[in-house]
Amino acid sequence: MASNEFAPGVRLTDEQRLDWLRLIRSDNVGPRTFRSLLNHCGGARAALDALPDLARRGGAARPARICSREAAERELEASIKQGVALIALGEPGYPARLRMIDDAPPLIGVRGKTSALASHMIAVVGSRNASAAGAKFAERIARELGDAGFVIVSGLARGIDAAAHRASLGTGTVAVLAGGHDHVYPAEHAPMVEQILPAGCAITEMPLGWEPRGRDFPRRNRLISGLSIGVVIVEAARRSGSLITARMANEQGREVFAVPGSPLDPRAEGTNGLLKQGATLVTEAADVLAVVRPILGQRIEQPVEEPDGGERNFTEPDNSERARIARLLGPTPVSIDDLVRLSQSTPAVVRTVLLELEIAGRLERHGGGLVSLV
Amino acid sequence: MASNEFAPGVRLTDEQRLDWLRLIRSDNVGPRTFRSLLNHCGGARAALDALPDLARRGGAARPARICSREAAERELEASIKQGVALIALGEPGYPARLRMIDDAPPLIGVRGKTSALASHMIAVVGSRNASAAGAKFAERIARELGDAGFVIVSGLARGIDAAAHRASLGTGTVAVLAGGHDHVYPAEHAPMVEQILPAGCAITEMPLGWEPRGRDFPRRNRLISGLSIGVVIVEAARRSGSLITARMANEQGREVFAVPGSPLDPRAEGTNGLLKQGATLVTEAADVLAVVRPILGQRIEQPVEEPDGGERNFTEPDNSERARIARLLGPTPVSIDDLVRLSQSTPAVVRTVLLELEIAGRLERHGGGLVSLV
Repeated sequence: MASNEFAPGVRLTDEQRLDWLRLIRSDNVGPRTFRSLLNHCGGARAALDALPDLARRGGAARPARICSREAAERELEASIKQGVALIALGEPGYPARLRMIDDAPPLIGVRGKTSALASHMIAVVGSRNASAAGAKFAERIARELGDAGFVIVSGLARGIDAAAHRASLGTGTVAVLAGGHDHVYPAEHAPMVEQILPAGCAITEMPLGWEPRGRDFPRRNRLISGLSIGVVIVEAARRSGSLITARMANEQGREVFAVPGSPLDPRAEGTNGLLKQGATLVTEAADVLAVVRPILGQRIEQPVEEPDGGERNFTEPDNSERARIARLLGPTPVSIDDLVRLSQSTPAVVRTVLLELEIAGRLERHGGGLVSLV
Repeated sequence: MASNEFAPGVRLTDEQRLDWLRLIRSDNVGPRTFRSLLNHCGGARAALDALPDLARRGGAARPARICSREAAERELEASIKQGVALIALGEPGYPARLRMIDDAPPLIGVRGKTSALASHMIAVVGSRNASAAGAKFAERIARELGDAGFVIVSGLARGIDAAAHRASLGTGTVAVLAGGHDHVYPAEHAPMVEQILPAGCAITEMPLGWEPRGRDFPRRNRLISGLSIGVVIVEAARRSGSLITARMANEQGREVFAVPGSPLDPRAEGTNGLLKQGATLVTEAADVLAVVRPILGQRIEQPVEEPDGGERNFTEPDNSERARIARLLGPTPVSIDDLVRLSQSTPAVVRTVLLELEIAGRLERHGGGLVSLV
């Protein structure tokens, strides 16, 4: 029986939502693993039951921590108390474009006007140490895109992000957080979040109480681009978070727009570099609209679920297969297709072994169907 | 008998050079007409003889002024005295790429180290009221391209042009003048010309004594791009001479490079606009070299001469043909191909009628085989 828990437009039951929350809050379960588990086990409840066995077969040193029912209930209650709606992938309120990315969060916590997430969105991001001209330009383009009917997505950072949010408070803006809703970063922007909520929202995939660490920001950036039709990078130094957002946007098939700057201005190095790589040059909102408007009419493609062909109950790998597949893996990412070919196992068996390794905390998944050992 | 006066690599005789000079200095004879006349008449001497008849048949209100032998001799002598070499199209010293453009000047006056014209050239041009950053960037890229073995072409204007020349005095730079060699504009840059001459040169198609007028500058700009493999536009406002140079470069099939700038800087409006139209973005010399180096290996295509198929003596149009073709012309440019089709005359007849109108001062030739009545 295939899982219908991903079926678009269907609300989860309260029990299902609790199971989803437990599963995604358990150790070694990220968005991609979550999806594999639901495909493999048929549902979140079955996946929770299967976790200990999978981790053991994957060679976990010690049992992986599974989020308890009580902990999940506490998070749900606290979320309700703080006005955070937990929206599941496939539910009506889940943003349509975000659902397309292959590591879409199973649950997002949303504060504010959730209906803003039904609008077409464009991200405007850039340097924290923006120049006055950069901040002014971010404000201008965010206001013009807002007036054109788009909700502005950004990362609540100082500089360009803040300017973009500020200019679109009235028309709608979405702040994507790297931590929990009770850990806004930077803290000085907590009042801005409150200004955002009447016409927009703050969203995060992290639980309440989560203080963002450095690596949570690049992870968060995939949501900024994932929500959006395109990303406008206003000022960006050579190595900056905004360039990560641009790379994510590229990988997700979203439009990348960059604002040019003088070659002598280090804050333009990143954006000029993006332009050399083919980003669309933006000097005014019309440049964005010319690219984005034709896309609006297109149907949003839903991601292709991995076929599970009813073979779920017949794919138990034997130990020699496990060993053979594990031997093919190393720290260098390899494609799952190559693993299938080289191991001479079935795709279903390879997927199962990978899932076991993942739950055991030994496997890392990269984009594009690549995996490596941790 | 077809003219061999355009044959590449052959020096003109002194008599031929004098005839060429008389022809190009005569009224209503521009570079394109010069070429048509040589094709039509078989040589400059024959063309001079034919001018009065052609002008009469083309309906000239009064006879077109033909440059006298004495005036041409005076110009030649004065040129020699001032160290100006008059190099004819097709002669060994004539710049190879300039020869490719369809309105290449029949004669160029060159002061300085004429061998600099045998180098590969890149133009660096831009705003007269350049910013400090723009001038600094122009210097940097001109120096780097000079160090990479390229001669830098520019227009001797204040701002970007001057910065580009200044940075390449040692490696070689070519100043293209809009007036005669004795009318450097702006006058304050006359000392810079003297600094240019040891390793580079100043060139013009205009006679000694010619004071440049407004319309001579766009005309001159086609030589800046025509000499060069590519043109780097450093700063340019929305409507500026540099954009004309960029357009000429495009029409001539030369590379167009543009330096990005902030959308809030009016001096970057032109260059950002060029980038939107597909110019190559430049933040460092390597960006230019990456495009230009592969081109260096390619053989320079010589322009295709109009076929004259020996029919020169048999194409005398009758008056009804003349009238029919003239009626098809108006102030809106039309293609010569369309004229042939609509007039049901032969291409040779149409060409002859157009030449007559041109010599009579009644026809204007545009790029791409388009003509209109003046």
